Amino acid sequence: MSKRNKISLSVIRRLPKYYRFLNHLISQDINRISSSKLSEITGLTAPQIRQDLNCFGGFGQQGYGYNVAELKNQVASIIGINKSISAILIGIGNIGKTILTHLQFESMGFKINGVFDNDSLKIGANIAGFQIMDVNYLLDFCSINNPTVAIICLPMSVVGDIVKKLVNNGVRCFWNFSHYDISVEHSNTIVENVHLQDSLLTLCYRVNNQEN
Amino acid sequence: MSKRNKISLSVIRRLPKYYRFLNHLISQDINRISSSKLSEITGLTAPQIRQDLNCFGGFGQQGYGYNVAELKNQVASIIGINKSISAILIGIGNIGKTILTHLQFESMGFKINGVFDNDSLKIGANIAGFQIMDVNYLLDFCSINNPTVAIICLPMSVVGDIVKKLVNNGVRCFWNFSHYDISVEHSNTIVENVHLQDSLLTLCYRVNNQEN
Repeated sequence: MSKRNKISLSVIRRLPKYYRFLNHLISQDINRISSSKLSEITGLTAPQIRQDLNCFGGFGQQGYGYNVAELKNQVASIIGINKSISAILIGIGNIGKTILTHLQFESMGFKINGVFDNDSLKIGANIAGFQIMDVNYLLDFCSINNPTVAIICLPMSVVGDIVKKLVNNGVRCFWNFSHYDISVEHSNTIVENVHLQDSLLTLCYRVNNQEN
Repeated sequence: MSKRNKISLSVIRRLPKYYRFLNHLISQDINRISSSKLSEITGLTAPQIRQDLNCFGGFGQQGYGYNVAELKNQVASIIGINKSISAILIGIGNIGKTILTHLQFESMGFKINGVFDNDSLKIGANIAGFQIMDVNYLLDFCSINNPTVAIICLPMSVVGDIVKKLVNNGVRCFWNFSHYDISVEHSNTIVENVHLQDSLLTLCYRVNNQEN
């Protein structure tokens, strides 16, 4: 895997935002954009945008701005969308099922190679082209296939145990939809969390404490 | 609505995390916890925890630590979970449907009062006890019921137009699952975003650029 100079997580987290806005500009047939216009539509400052993109080599031209398609391709390449990271998904409840059927993983650098649940009524069934496997087969599957990422859509009662087993079997990258904080228990992991309840409770606080 | 001294968004975003861990401690019958132990399980430093909770008045006792149930109730009250913020949900695709059926809004300070879609096959159907209404009725509904929050589960092609109408009709708080950045277009809004694609692409970058 390629290595870059240490880039801060806040810069990294803005890359998908640039990618999203650049795709939107392309869908509007906009070929060229200044950093000040890009600032206007993204809500980031123009110096911030230039500084972010300079972390990866620049791409803009003085007096011209950015070529939208080129910049989009550069950002895609920086993120690694052209790669195919092997992933498994564990837990086919509401959230797991929605993620599996709703997101286009292959256009975002991932390939789902296995889907697991512990419910005998679900095991063997087919969802979005994936045959659900018994979670008892998970570790054997990992030994054979070495998935890089596990997408965790499990309830709190079982998540700690399964994540521990995965880490012990070499999985250290997680997309986590559970309430469990993987990186607290397992420091040598890469985790992106989607804590829906945390997000909603943050909104609750902010609505109840509006400034104006 | 109550007003507090200005508290930073990073402190606010940690409140749901405390709430989550405190609930977990209660489920394990743990009644009392030191800030150092709380630090260990949350992954935050003990001074950080004390400083966060001091923003709202403290709650710990020197040499005793925190009473878990009391602290949980205090945090719940700070967040405003006992309130009932009126909310509507717009867009009953995969994500909208999952949110509606999966999350316990009433235990998180919200009450869903209306659910909308533009699909004639969905309008009138019942999901999780809600009868889906025609999105054409949205503004009339807002005039009559004055919802505080709109949960946005719409595709990019229609989201800008609908959000603009909502803002013009007095809705200024959003839980946003769309790709659209509401706060860029509408500065006087309170928005919590759940950008699943951004989260996945951030993971993609981090997996492709692992430090070790």
